[in-house]
Amino acid sequence: MTYQEAMLKAFEVVSHQKSRGQPATYIPELTKVDSEKFGVHIHATDGSEAGTGHHREAFSIQSISKVFSLCMAYTLLGEGLWHRLGVEPSGTAFNSLVQLEADRGIPRNPFINAGAMVICDILISQFKDPKTEFLTFVRKVAALPHLHYSSRIAESEKSVGNRNVALCHFIKSFGNIHNAPEEVLDFYFNLCSLEMSCQEVSRAFLFLANGGKTIEGEEILNPSQTKRINALMQTCGFYDESGEFAFKVGLPGKSGVGGGIVAIHPHHYCISVWSPRLNAKGNSQRGVDFLELFTTLTELSIF
Amino acid sequence: MTYQEAMLKAFEVVSHQKSRGQPATYIPELTKVDSEKFGVHIHATDGSEAGTGHHREAFSIQSISKVFSLCMAYTLLGEGLWHRLGVEPSGTAFNSLVQLEADRGIPRNPFINAGAMVICDILISQFKDPKTEFLTFVRKVAALPHLHYSSRIAESEKSVGNRNVALCHFIKSFGNIHNAPEEVLDFYFNLCSLEMSCQEVSRAFLFLANGGKTIEGEEILNPSQTKRINALMQTCGFYDESGEFAFKVGLPGKSGVGGGIVAIHPHHYCISVWSPRLNAKGNSQRGVDFLELFTTLTELSIF
Amino acid sequence: MTYQEAMLKAFEVVSHQKSRGQPATYIPELTKVDSEKFGVHIHATDGSEAGTGHHREAFSIQSISKVFSLCMAYTLLGEGLWHRLGVEPSGTAFNSLVQLEADRGIPRNPFINAGAMVICDILISQFKDPKTEFLTFVRKVAALPHLHYSSRIAESEKSVGNRNVALCHFIKSFGNIHNAPEEVLDFYFNLCSLEMSCQEVSRAFLFLANGGKTIEGEEILNPSQTKRINALMQTCGFYDESGEFAFKVGLPGKSGVGGGIVAIHPHHYCISVWSPRLNAKGNSQRGVDFLELFTTLTELSIF
Amino acid sequence: MTYQEAMLKAFEVVSHQKSRGQPATYIPELTKVDSEKFGVHIHATDGSEAGTGHHREAFSIQSISKVFSLCMAYTLLGEGLWHRLGVEPSGTAFNSLVQLEADRGIPRNPFINAGAMVICDILISQFKDPKTEFLTFVRKVAALPHLHYSSRIAESEKSVGNRNVALCHFIKSFGNIHNAPEEVLDFYFNLCSLEMSCQEVSRAFLFLANGGKTIEGEEILNPSQTKRINALMQTCGFYDESGEFAFKVGLPGKSGVGGGIVAIHPHHYCISVWSPRLNAKGNSQRGVDFLELFTTLTELSIF
Repeated sequence: MTYQEAMLKAFEVVSHQKSRGQPATYIPELTKVDSEKFGVHIHATDGSEAGTGHHREAFSIQSISKVFSLCMAYTLLGEGLWHRLGVEPSGTAFNSLVQLEADRGIPRNPFINAGAMVICDILISQFKDPKTEFLTFVRKVAALPHLHYSSRIAESEKSVGNRNVALCHFIKSFGNIHNAPEEVLDFYFNLCSLEMSCQEVSRAFLFLANGGKTIEGEEILNPSQTKRINALMQTCGFYDESGEFAFKVGLPGKSGVGGGIVAIHPHHYCISVWSPRLNAKGNSQRGVDFLELFTTLTELSIF
Repeated sequence: MTYQEAMLKAFEVVSHQKSRGQPATYIPELTKVDSEKFGVHIHATDGSEAGTGHHREAFSIQSISKVFSLCMAYTLLGEGLWHRLGVEPSGTAFNSLVQLEADRGIPRNPFINAGAMVICDILISQFKDPKTEFLTFVRKVAALPHLHYSSRIAESEKSVGNRNVALCHFIKSFGNIHNAPEEVLDFYFNLCSLEMSCQEVSRAFLFLANGGKTIEGEEILNPSQTKRINALMQTCGFYDESGEFAFKVGLPGKSGVGGGIVAIHPHHYCISVWSPRLNAKGNSQRGVDFLELFTTLTELSIF
Repeated sequence: MTYQEAMLKAFEVVSHQKSRGQPATYIPELTKVDSEKFGVHIHATDGSEAGTGHHREAFSIQSISKVFSLCMAYTLLGEGLWHRLGVEPSGTAFNSLVQLEADRGIPRNPFINAGAMVICDILISQFKDPKTEFLTFVRKVAALPHLHYSSRIAESEKSVGNRNVALCHFIKSFGNIHNAPEEVLDFYFNLCSLEMSCQEVSRAFLFLANGGKTIEGEEILNPSQTKRINALMQTCGFYDESGEFAFKVGLPGKSGVGGGIVAIHPHHYCISVWSPRLNAKGNSQRGVDFLELFTTLTELSIF
Repeated sequence: MTYQEAMLKAFEVVSHQKSRGQPATYIPELTKVDSEKFGVHIHATDGSEAGTGHHREAFSIQSISKVFSLCMAYTLLGEGLWHRLGVEPSGTAFNSLVQLEADRGIPRNPFINAGAMVICDILISQFKDPKTEFLTFVRKVAALPHLHYSSRIAESEKSVGNRNVALCHFIKSFGNIHNAPEEVLDFYFNLCSLEMSCQEVSRAFLFLANGGKTIEGEEILNPSQTKRINALMQTCGFYDESGEFAFKVGLPGKSGVGGGIVAIHPHHYCISVWSPRLNAKGNSQRGVDFLELFTTLTELSIF
């Protein structure tokens, strides 16, 4: 079965299953989204692409954006990055402070909120205008020259972000945030506010399936760095459901509370799904169901 | 560079590096092993094989044996297995009781000690003589008809196994051990006592690189189960260094405190290393160093 | 209001309140006790005494016995005792292993199960026949020359004591149990099996209200040691309800899962209550209610 | 030995012992204080008083002030207070976030930082100008009509208070802070900034030894509330050294990182000590040593 056939088949099957899970409710703006939206898009390294459902509709990519910021920091600092944070799965919820206390302010990995904040702090230390520089980086990687932060979503998150404010000051208290927490948080909330469609997401992250190069041939990461980012997405990309996702789907990936998921089959393709209802671990229910069926139908996974 | 060339090159480089780490000291019998031993062996799915160093010398495979018992239980119970234990990385040390208390006696995965004990318990419930049945299974998978438990090592572990005795009774107190803890522990200590060489280990686990079939064509697991075991070894195979191993080496694998490691490149090969000195996380220091260099030289990983 | 009047009044009021809570169900023998039993007895340092309800009926004193073993060890080792365990409230449930892991095998205090086991271990190291010596000590303190262990209850606890077996081996794994865990556990289960009536309990512990001397004038502890045991009962005597008990009742004391409580008003009296139904924290519901009302009516507490 | 004699004797002995411990260094302003300061003052319920050393020199009372705010909130809300926070010892460090996560934002007691912030939040909800109202309350209780907040110390704490900012937002994320975290923190930092001498402190808290009434006869708390505050100081007043303090000193009390301690002997006296060097648990080393010797010499404690 070709990717396109498998995609259409899996989409149809999952579309007809009863909708389960609940959309994220803690960010006011996200509650305004129609929870029955469902789209999927695939870009292969051979240049082909296909999509279906609401695959051209922009959604809040939320934590998927943490892959962009990680890649940007990685290009700047290389392996020096890992003095400030780890590469291990956290074993606890994405916004837990418990582990951070045990680990003296060193976040377990760059995909939990604490780790993403340390990455923000690193970027702030590197640039005069980090928000503009980051946007420029994403625009280049995603080939979306007109992409903007959504101030509407950023403000909405700020209004309810007490846990994140707590996290940032907590890391600061251990000395692992170097800039003003207010600035780090402002950057962090903006970073999570980006809106893209499945088609745009699967195109943007195709470089991770392509040895670090965009389809046009521009190197974003070198091959070794690319492998490592994929490894990190495999072990840490789905909060405390990362093991289950590897077990069922078998691809590196990253999810966001907006209901988006991006997954990579190295040397083959990048696929993105969007459906706002989340399972108990905070990952898109239909997104996970679709990807499990899709990899079963294609009979391919990295394992 | 061919696998064989990469293996020889990486072995030479690591052999000349200063020996670091310390062999496991808590099991008396393991302290008698020469800590400078170093061997490696690879079996490819095309039937070729190669090895060097002390690759033909038997060592205590310890926790590597947990892959055997997991596969055996998986063939018997299928996905029903996962009512008794999870598939998530633990985030804490291999013998921690903390997480087990939070998770009400459900071990995070089958490779931490608690999970391996639940697997033992499952096998005991299935068979009249589980120790003999298990040995028969390993003999078949490994094509080693004369393999035996090492009562010397099993007794040595029993003599110092207070933490494991505590673990087993603790799980029992939550109702997730159904048989007598003494019987579960006896089986567990015997299971960990197997001795094999790198050559034997890489041959035994070749089926995991071969879609679930031995090189002679016997199906041990079906293709879907095989992928899932590989996924589990990727996310959980190296205790709380699993993320780091995925990050640096990029292959599913399993380590033991005897200094052995087995790693799988699905559809390509199975490789085994042995060197008794362990790093701070309890994995073979030279084993990890060798595999990192080996996958760099072959320019191949699953990512 | 005299002690006797207050006792009768409080007993009457609480007797007429609806029975709440549940008796301990995890020890089979304890479930055979009539859960509506309710007795109370007071012994004052002036020699007077009074009781009502089922105050002359023997019940399983369970953890109350840990005060006896602590006092016995204290007389033998003095302050040297505190190298093996602490004097701080635990903040977690009485049989938790979490804190023990963080504290590397040093129990927080002698009244949680882990601490009581270390005390048993200490007594075993001191005596050829610790069970007989301990019984002799309690017989002397309690003036009950015919007191015996209840093998019925000890065996019942052993049959379900997986958590305690786990605890003991766990402490052993840190080196803070010096004797065989089996011997420590056997002593521990016997120690908890003593059966006494409210009248006997309040008489036995009167020395803690009397500067360390029995009413006949025999010194069990010196005045300084007596104060310290009382302080320990104040801060640690009621598991993770110790703060609440100090807050509401304001007296040092110790409870057991058999539904017994002993409380001390230094220089004034010792009072014992028994009612098998326990609140959510494992302390006798009517026992706590009675003591709160009793201290309110007498308008006396140590604070 | 009279209180005065015991005080002078204990002061002399401890003065000649080698200075141990380190003053608090995390608040810049506190590091400017001469770490060899040592003063003590006692006020008895019979109206007598005595002091020695630097007993008339003002120091930063820090967390001792939390007893004032607790009493003020208690008079306003009565037992309704305990819906928002508990009365149990915490078992962990004073500024830990771990327990707060497990307890879903309900602080264990009013003396850990989290609990004191909830008390601040309660007072803010009660008053238009809580800072002025609180100052008025303390001025009345302490009979110090000219007492002021030290903006110098409040600002110094704010400049390094990341952990406290984290705590406050963390509680807010559970919904147990009702007002703006910035306002709560401003009040909290001011509350901790009060400066008083040993003489003033022992006079201010004499009402807790006097059934709730000041020496002039004004009722601050009723007798039942007074007992309960004393009980709380007994079980929770010294962070995770509360058990040790009860064990060695046997009096309810409260310490601050400025090196001050206040202790109460109900119906007898209130005593205050000040010496800036702290032990490992954050309590004044000489303060604890002095009080242990003092209660030994007077042969009196509540136990």
